[in-house]
Amino acid sequence: MLNTVIIGASGYTGAELAKMVSRHPQLTLTGLYVSATSLDANKPLSELHGQLKGMVDLPLQPLTDLKTTAAAADIVLLATAHEVSHDIAAEFLDAGCQVFDLSGAFRVKADGFYQQYYGFEHQYGQWLDNAVYGLAEWNQADIAQAQLIAVPGCYPTASQLALKPLVVAGLLDCQQWPVINAVSGVSGAGRKASMTNSFCEVSLQAYGLFTHRHQPEISHHLNCDVIFTPHLGNFKRGILATITAKLAPGVTADDVTAAMEAAYSNATDQHAVRLLNNNTAQLDNVVGSCFCDIGWQVQGEHIILTAAIDNLLKGASSQAMQCINIRNGFPQLTALV
Amino acid sequence: MLNTVIIGASGYTGAELAKMVSRHPQLTLTGLYVSATSLDANKPLSELHGQLKGMVDLPLQPLTDLKTTAAAADIVLLATAHEVSHDIAAEFLDAGCQVFDLSGAFRVKADGFYQQYYGFEHQYGQWLDNAVYGLAEWNQADIAQAQLIAVPGCYPTASQLALKPLVVAGLLDCQQWPVINAVSGVSGAGRKASMTNSFCEVSLQAYGLFTHRHQPEISHHLNCDVIFTPHLGNFKRGILATITAKLAPGVTADDVTAAMEAAYSNATDQHAVRLLNNNTAQLDNVVGSCFCDIGWQVQGEHIILTAAIDNLLKGASSQAMQCINIRNGFPQLTALV
Amino acid sequence: MLNTVIIGASGYTGAELAKMVSRHPQLTLTGLYVSATSLDANKPLSELHGQLKGMVDLPLQPLTDLKTTAAAADIVLLATAHEVSHDIAAEFLDAGCQVFDLSGAFRVKADGFYQQYYGFEHQYGQWLDNAVYGLAEWNQADIAQAQLIAVPGCYPTASQLALKPLVVAGLLDCQQWPVINAVSGVSGAGRKASMTNSFCEVSLQAYGLFTHRHQPEISHHLNCDVIFTPHLGNFKRGILATITAKLAPGVTADDVTAAMEAAYSNATDQHAVRLLNNNTAQLDNVVGSCFCDIGWQVQGEHIILTAAIDNLLKGASSQAMQCINIRNGFPQLTALV
Amino acid sequence: MLNTVIIGASGYTGAELAKMVSRHPQLTLTGLYVSATSLDANKPLSELHGQLKGMVDLPLQPLTDLKTTAAAADIVLLATAHEVSHDIAAEFLDAGCQVFDLSGAFRVKADGFYQQYYGFEHQYGQWLDNAVYGLAEWNQADIAQAQLIAVPGCYPTASQLALKPLVVAGLLDCQQWPVINAVSGVSGAGRKASMTNSFCEVSLQAYGLFTHRHQPEISHHLNCDVIFTPHLGNFKRGILATITAKLAPGVTADDVTAAMEAAYSNATDQHAVRLLNNNTAQLDNVVGSCFCDIGWQVQGEHIILTAAIDNLLKGASSQAMQCINIRNGFPQLTALV
Repeated sequence: MLNTVIIGASGYTGAELAKMVSRHPQLTLTGLYVSATSLDANKPLSELHGQLKGMVDLPLQPLTDLKTTAAAADIVLLATAHEVSHDIAAEFLDAGCQVFDLSGAFRVKADGFYQQYYGFEHQYGQWLDNAVYGLAEWNQADIAQAQLIAVPGCYPTASQLALKPLVVAGLLDCQQWPVINAVSGVSGAGRKASMTNSFCEVSLQAYGLFTHRHQPEISHHLNCDVIFTPHLGNFKRGILATITAKLAPGVTADDVTAAMEAAYSNATDQHAVRLLNNNTAQLDNVVGSCFCDIGWQVQGEHIILTAAIDNLLKGASSQAMQCINIRNGFPQLTALV
Repeated sequence: MLNTVIIGASGYTGAELAKMVSRHPQLTLTGLYVSATSLDANKPLSELHGQLKGMVDLPLQPLTDLKTTAAAADIVLLATAHEVSHDIAAEFLDAGCQVFDLSGAFRVKADGFYQQYYGFEHQYGQWLDNAVYGLAEWNQADIAQAQLIAVPGCYPTASQLALKPLVVAGLLDCQQWPVINAVSGVSGAGRKASMTNSFCEVSLQAYGLFTHRHQPEISHHLNCDVIFTPHLGNFKRGILATITAKLAPGVTADDVTAAMEAAYSNATDQHAVRLLNNNTAQLDNVVGSCFCDIGWQVQGEHIILTAAIDNLLKGASSQAMQCINIRNGFPQLTALV
Repeated sequence: MLNTVIIGASGYTGAELAKMVSRHPQLTLTGLYVSATSLDANKPLSELHGQLKGMVDLPLQPLTDLKTTAAAADIVLLATAHEVSHDIAAEFLDAGCQVFDLSGAFRVKADGFYQQYYGFEHQYGQWLDNAVYGLAEWNQADIAQAQLIAVPGCYPTASQLALKPLVVAGLLDCQQWPVINAVSGVSGAGRKASMTNSFCEVSLQAYGLFTHRHQPEISHHLNCDVIFTPHLGNFKRGILATITAKLAPGVTADDVTAAMEAAYSNATDQHAVRLLNNNTAQLDNVVGSCFCDIGWQVQGEHIILTAAIDNLLKGASSQAMQCINIRNGFPQLTALV
Repeated sequence: MLNTVIIGASGYTGAELAKMVSRHPQLTLTGLYVSATSLDANKPLSELHGQLKGMVDLPLQPLTDLKTTAAAADIVLLATAHEVSHDIAAEFLDAGCQVFDLSGAFRVKADGFYQQYYGFEHQYGQWLDNAVYGLAEWNQADIAQAQLIAVPGCYPTASQLALKPLVVAGLLDCQQWPVINAVSGVSGAGRKASMTNSFCEVSLQAYGLFTHRHQPEISHHLNCDVIFTPHLGNFKRGILATITAKLAPGVTADDVTAAMEAAYSNATDQHAVRLLNNNTAQLDNVVGSCFCDIGWQVQGEHIILTAAIDNLLKGASSQAMQCINIRNGFPQLTALV
């Protein structure tokens, strides 16, 4: 049994992680932590997330002593703000813990990236270099060896799982940037009070045009420039991405199907992608599940792909758990289906 | 043309009032005010409420000089917090303005009521005595003469419009307290950031069991004790009240129908109630409208009534406008249909 | 391993049952059936319910040969219409199968009940007499011995779990009928095309005033007359019941708490009720889970209780699975948490 | 006063039209018609659309005698199926009525279009030639003279209002097809029972990839090929279109702004477009209103535009009313604001 702690456990992804760890046959949930100043400190997690009552009633502890916490942990899940992950990850890594970071702090190894998109200078270049990007279906071998896994963002997960088979197989004309339109549930903004998230103010709309930090994350890992436009949807959970792209000259619908099937075999215990081929992905089919549904259609030189995930699960918590499973040699979807 | 100002114009009821006043052929919207410290001061109202763009682009002014504001106004709409209405109403009244207060500050003339339910001692007993309760369908004669009209709360409007015809006609057995269950849209909580109103936290639930301040407002004006249980619903606007009550001995379904029809004639230009008789009220039929729909069913000695209103309109703004129309001799639904 | 078949597997409860049976360590899902004339025959279940793709891809077979189907099954789940359950249950029972019926066909042993509320004369009086009402928390000993278990309706489950501890302990004044207001998600109406269920027509409203067939089911099993008013809510899943009742003379809040805690111990592996005491039940805390959350508040001689369940789970499928577990000596929440 | 009849009045656009005509100072609503075989015949419109109670209680008449109906009408609104509009329009036109057709039957003058996209051969080539496309902001002069106005579809209205200023000013590189992603409320599918529209089945998803008949309508009238991907959203009303396009070489953000402002002056009584410039369009700001909100952002050679309308209003009924107003010399937004 591996001792597992969750830092930043009060939010929506923290709650999902706590549920999964509790249910995992090889993990023991040994600690839930919030920042030392949090008003939620010492409350049972189930007081904040009523659906966990009777399932995860462990209290949220204030994170006051990193060293002691690190010493007692085998696995550390960071469901913290980017800056916090950046600041504390090294302490856990130095203590030998496996660290799975759900923030953006270790995702992109590109000069000036953190200054430009996250507003801080990265201080842990070594760990950034060693971090493995936890896109579970694509980096399995590296994840199995890594000490620090940077779990991808929610939009990048949906977008890359759909596009990567085409890019890798050379089927895409990346000169004409793929257009990614994606709609996310409000939980993507985290658990907090704000006018933007206020029930009566939520209304379907685009935001962050040309400037969202997930655009460079996608382009960097895909090695293909994209235009990415996120939208806020009037629902709690889920992401639907609709992607329009130009195929390389001569590419046929059959080429696309072959590339997709090669990338994602049908055995769903080895990965969490479900291919729909000529169907389109539907949000409600993936909400509450660890799967990414991908559909597509080709006409002439154009392709439209649709991809749907639960933003809190495959877009965060369940993908982190997939990485834990890969890293520790457990069946990949343990505690997930 | 009557100069009309709205104090507390930044909220949801303020926005609705601004739209109505702009559209009213005998009123001129001469000022929109927010508290002097509001961050919204000097913004056009349509910047906060995008649906008003091109319709009400007037800026929100900080309310710094009550006297000057009062001197220039014929009609004052107070869409302010209870304490603010309490504190500033007299200034406008003393200047001779007609004051329509949408807060609870002048609704109930009962000893100790404000201390117990609103947490402050009422300082304006004289004005409280003179205030007329603006339940438009029932206090028409008094409203037509009053200088200060206390517009009823949203839950009390739906509840009283359904029950009052029965109480007045002596058809109810008030010994067994009527049970009022009502579900309100989230806008009833006002325009503000809070965890309770946060999109992902909103979930159908009862609140304020036995303690909501609308319970004594209903009981007081109805002259019949009630058990009132409000609920938060997962929608933006509207209130649906379901009321279960015991009829007085010997009362028949026909007696009820006669009482209802006597109270609310069919001419919908004289009032804003629509009788459904054997049908049940549906929320979406009244959202966006000034009407209260009322249905009922009798079985043996029991009656179940359903009443639906738009909480921001008949439960607040359009009822205020009905009162303005009554007070000034305009057709009652001017600017409302 | 027990061979388990689901009859009427194409609907929402059927899909939930299929997921649970697949996941259960002691059950094998050996057949999914629909009526011989169904257009869904021969389709994989996951074609109708996309969320099951990769999890339950078994095809829906037309039910043409009852005897053969019965001979091969240990456990039969009837997720069929009331009339169908009534007609076919005996065939499975005679073959020695355990039958768990989710319809209303065997729930109420009262003269004339089926004629009045279901429109047919019951032909299987013997089996009706032998049927055990599957309210899992209350009839555990009988369920453990029964061959035919009539799983309760969704509204009755929420209502009875909240009221039964009080009735059994003699704390309620049943002379004054408890008032049950409950709001259900649209899935309660089943998987079918109708104007009533059409997305744009759904709007919060009461229905079936004084006439819903769940009223006599509740009154019968509770042994206390009630007034039950169901509502259609603007959401897919879940039921919230708000119950207002009069306590017997002298009953205190402490008496109520004691009765509740006696009825539902804290060990949530023995039952599926979570007591909230002074909190109110929230819909989203139970959607997707097998739990019933119950809160209450006492004031003077009145009590208000709130109870929330997932209508498709504790109100149907997961309660059926609880009954299977009880009947076969498995831990009660196997495959449910 | 002009006698106005609505054919196909039972649907959602019919109901909106009835409300507008009733409220219009120069129109008299003289008849509401449904097909002779409709089950809704002889019901008051407000029985189908409860929100119209007390406002439009006129009965729905079966359309049995086209000639008599035509003879008594000055203005005819066809809210009928495409085939029905195609079949009956000529009868009204020959009788001298002004005809405003909300179907697709007279929108596109291109060989083979109706056979390919609507499945019927067009029989009224002459009237098709004479029909004016009722995109109110762009075809004002022609609309003012026309006898037959083909009111545009909902998606085409949002898409064209956003793109047309750029195409007309030559600012777009149409070689790289603009990508239009649009999400529509469920009311766009009409008032009918179907599994697709069933409340529990509705889930955000793309549909009609590469094949929706609004794609050629947009391309034809815009004179620029586009890739159009419609989506079904989990809400009743509204359309949000997000459009990604490539600008012609050397075009700047200022050029775009100038073209937009030239196309849509600020005087909102002359048209129904509201320019948001650097803001993005939000669905809820236009639901229930006659306006189209348009925002945009330029980066390098790319532009992203967002456009929002109420699909039943600017996407159908209120645009038809704008056309009536233009055709008859009334202020353009009469009965609309």
